[in-house]
Amino acid sequence: MIKKSKSAIKKSATNNNTLLVRRLGIDTYREYVAYLHRDCELYRAEGFQALSKVKICVDGQRILAVLNIVDDHSIVKPTDLGLSEEAFAKLGVEEGRLVSIEHADAPLSMNAVRRKIEGERLNQDDYSHIISDITEMRYSKTEIAAFLVASGQTDMDRDEVYYLTCAMLDSGKTLDWNESLVVDKHCIGGIPGNRTSMLVVPIVAAHGMLIPKTSSRAITSPAGTADTMEVLANVELDIEKLHDIVRKYRSCLVWGGKARLSPADDILIAVERPLGIDSIGQMVASILSKKLAAGATHLLIDIPVGPTAKVRQMRQAQRLRKLFEFVADQLNIHLEVVITDGRQPVGSGIGPVLECRDVMQVLQNDPNAPADLRQKSLRLAGRLLEFDPDVRGGKGFAIARDILDSGRALDMMNTLIKAQGAQTNQYELGELTHDVRSPENGVVVNIDNLQMAHIARFAGAPMDKGAGVDLFKKLGDKVKKGDLLYRIHAQFPADYRFAGELSENNSGYLIGKEEEIPKAFVEF
Amino acid sequence: MIKKSKSAIKKSATNNNTLLVRRLGIDTYREYVAYLHRDCELYRAEGFQALSKVKICVDGQRILAVLNIVDDHSIVKPTDLGLSEEAFAKLGVEEGRLVSIEHADAPLSMNAVRRKIEGERLNQDDYSHIISDITEMRYSKTEIAAFLVASGQTDMDRDEVYYLTCAMLDSGKTLDWNESLVVDKHCIGGIPGNRTSMLVVPIVAAHGMLIPKTSSRAITSPAGTADTMEVLANVELDIEKLHDIVRKYRSCLVWGGKARLSPADDILIAVERPLGIDSIGQMVASILSKKLAAGATHLLIDIPVGPTAKVRQMRQAQRLRKLFEFVADQLNIHLEVVITDGRQPVGSGIGPVLECRDVMQVLQNDPNAPADLRQKSLRLAGRLLEFDPDVRGGKGFAIARDILDSGRALDMMNTLIKAQGAQTNQYELGELTHDVRSPENGVVVNIDNLQMAHIARFAGAPMDKGAGVDLFKKLGDKVKKGDLLYRIHAQFPADYRFAGELSENNSGYLIGKEEEIPKAFVEF
Repeated sequence: MIKKSKSAIKKSATNNNTLLVRRLGIDTYREYVAYLHRDCELYRAEGFQALSKVKICVDGQRILAVLNIVDDHSIVKPTDLGLSEEAFAKLGVEEGRLVSIEHADAPLSMNAVRRKIEGERLNQDDYSHIISDITEMRYSKTEIAAFLVASGQTDMDRDEVYYLTCAMLDSGKTLDWNESLVVDKHCIGGIPGNRTSMLVVPIVAAHGMLIPKTSSRAITSPAGTADTMEVLANVELDIEKLHDIVRKYRSCLVWGGKARLSPADDILIAVERPLGIDSIGQMVASILSKKLAAGATHLLIDIPVGPTAKVRQMRQAQRLRKLFEFVADQLNIHLEVVITDGRQPVGSGIGPVLECRDVMQVLQNDPNAPADLRQKSLRLAGRLLEFDPDVRGGKGFAIARDILDSGRALDMMNTLIKAQGAQTNQYELGELTHDVRSPENGVVVNIDNLQMAHIARFAGAPMDKGAGVDLFKKLGDKVKKGDLLYRIHAQFPADYRFAGELSENNSGYLIGKEEEIPKAFVEF
Repeated sequence: MIKKSKSAIKKSATNNNTLLVRRLGIDTYREYVAYLHRDCELYRAEGFQALSKVKICVDGQRILAVLNIVDDHSIVKPTDLGLSEEAFAKLGVEEGRLVSIEHADAPLSMNAVRRKIEGERLNQDDYSHIISDITEMRYSKTEIAAFLVASGQTDMDRDEVYYLTCAMLDSGKTLDWNESLVVDKHCIGGIPGNRTSMLVVPIVAAHGMLIPKTSSRAITSPAGTADTMEVLANVELDIEKLHDIVRKYRSCLVWGGKARLSPADDILIAVERPLGIDSIGQMVASILSKKLAAGATHLLIDIPVGPTAKVRQMRQAQRLRKLFEFVADQLNIHLEVVITDGRQPVGSGIGPVLECRDVMQVLQNDPNAPADLRQKSLRLAGRLLEFDPDVRGGKGFAIARDILDSGRALDMMNTLIKAQGAQTNQYELGELTHDVRSPENGVVVNIDNLQMAHIARFAGAPMDKGAGVDLFKKLGDKVKKGDLLYRIHAQFPADYRFAGELSENNSGYLIGKEEEIPKAFVEF
């Protein structure tokens, strides 16, 4: 056994401990990945890849990354450290810089996640550490999945939901509008075509209330409000520009992602949505943290209920409502909940261009405008207007209708479009169309929200703004065999085929008898 | 709105629906990853990457893969579909072949996982579908993590553990030895240096009992029995060769991974270990499915208990024992449990070469052989021998000792080495050494199993077989300040530095007073 002198080894170890950083054009979507060549001397220490995470350090900046092993010199050389796009951007150094690499243990807060898995109740510090590590991208996607499942539906009490909300709120920036009445609305989602915000915001702003609306882009749905608004205007504003517009016009309709409000939420959602898990605790924390970060003081939550909505039974809606109310009270935000009809899509169009058409028809008082979208938007706007102490209880709806009918809401929308910057791309409806027709005579007794969203998504929405589904019949409409139920629009042949096949497999429509239509549970 | 003729579009869609398959030398470790260029026309349909999974089809073969988006033409072109190593191997076609690609929904059995998350009890069919989808690599790692957490400790009753065991057993091949007494032993793990199998197998086989031992490689530990046996012999035998050897010599000491016994278990473990979650239900299903698949009829389970072992309290050990017994009875396997002393590593060496040295010293009746390894192996072998109806109760230990002392166990080991193929590589102990010495006078009152494993792992074990830790003092040993506690061996300077730093941060040893040594809970 030869024992080399320790100092000599230390020196050589230091030399061997750095690698040349290389940017690899691979987008690993909200997970940092490091690529090391199998012959890299530093990898040997790592043992099997299962240990998986490495810490990369340069100039005091440290990131954790999941490890992938590469056998191809053209991707990375044994002296290189390849980084995925997001990891490279986060490290923030030039290609070719020497970076050091170390073993990374799981983040300490994973101990709390393990305790949660064992059924323990976590405290405020635990949630704070977990969310802070997630925000700093120290968790792998599997670790995030473990946290999401462990803190899912059955396992988080309402105090824990409050702690989680606080932690998520603390993870990012907060906007402060210095006014005592800042209103906002949010729908828990799941209903295609439900673009009420693009109507509610101009109505409420035209009344003079402050409503700085930050919206999301679609993750697994065919369009988010930000995707649809983008058909008309720029939605990616920096925070200064956002402030300017809101100060001038009392409102905006922008993408919230740019503002880094509750960034932990964006990371959690990226894992949660594809898993199809949607716990009510996570949902409440996600929504409230985002809205509080955006500076809202008065918030209206829309919970649609229906057989294919996120919430399928009235008792679930009531449970969710109570949880929203409890956490909002702790956080000192004025919150009201409306339970709405979620039995079918709202409006006619599903997909950004089509939904935009519906919204503009309503704003323009077009006789073809979808009545359900108009009606729902007026009801929501009416409730928001009643947050104004000067509006008499019960008068909100009429005020909202006056603003819409008089064209003041349309003017406000045009003002916002101009302020945010009108869209320079002309987005057209997809030219490839596939018509789905009624297989028999009868009445439309069901339209499956999930299937319609799925078809629109396959058709290319929201990436292709002109892709989607245009509904010609809604619940209760009488149809004859061969009548057009809906038309799929696509731009690309592959999408056209995918969406067409999906609709042939299951059209999402059920034709039957009048009395089979499920009852609506609506409570305004 | 122009409506193109449907047939014309169908044709163009078909042409656009294939991509040239490319093998990308990236090892994504038990998850299939597909790499598509951002400008690939088929990707647009996919929408955001969050939807994440695609189905790849060629020649009737279908695989699901997680999607990564590439911006670099030198990695994949827009007309290419890059595949990670395992995915490419599974698809089994040549590079440049045209493959078609489709949207992939989450596997249907994820619905059962979601029900489990909601707290439902799953039935036998549910477990069967989940494990079958996992075996076919249809789950992403986040989906596997969701399943593992949902079915973790508090949430799976003993019937469910039985269902899971059956499903995992059905996921792979089963060996049938056509004998009524096929013995095996298994330790639940967590104790470094615990290489009893390499002693128990030759002893029991020398007695004439059938003991076809398939072992694992280390995943997060510094050595598995397969890694250590590989220092001496080939452990990667195909199933025919395995059968030949077992028929001739009544035993073997091979790596089980080659035999595809309970392959679902290998996939689950690859996600479970880095997460550091270790539910007792998963553990029981994992071990019993592997052992039943290997054809065991009589099984001895070793549960070490100690402050830094997997099982830390006697009541946990008893709960685990009952669960093992319940599931084994359902499966009609004769199972016995021994609870052993897990307060510290067994033997002196940690790491393949060092552990191999300990084993050979015991077999050779070397006076320097670690007494604890010898004693524990004799006790386990004794219990196994008593599965033989002709061995009188209580006589197993003496028979085992006779076989070991007479050199028959050594002969058997040499026979197995020859039969499996002696190792042609000469593995040497790592030349870079770092000595850790006692900081004070006293008695060794604690040796942290986890920390010692961690240090050996950082030193390079098991990838570098000569890396590891050699213990010079054990629990209860008197030490003077400056006495050698243990020596770290490494081959590569970076490993040397990582392990040295880790040991300086926390040596894993505690020096104190005689009376501070924790009591052993041993029950043989």
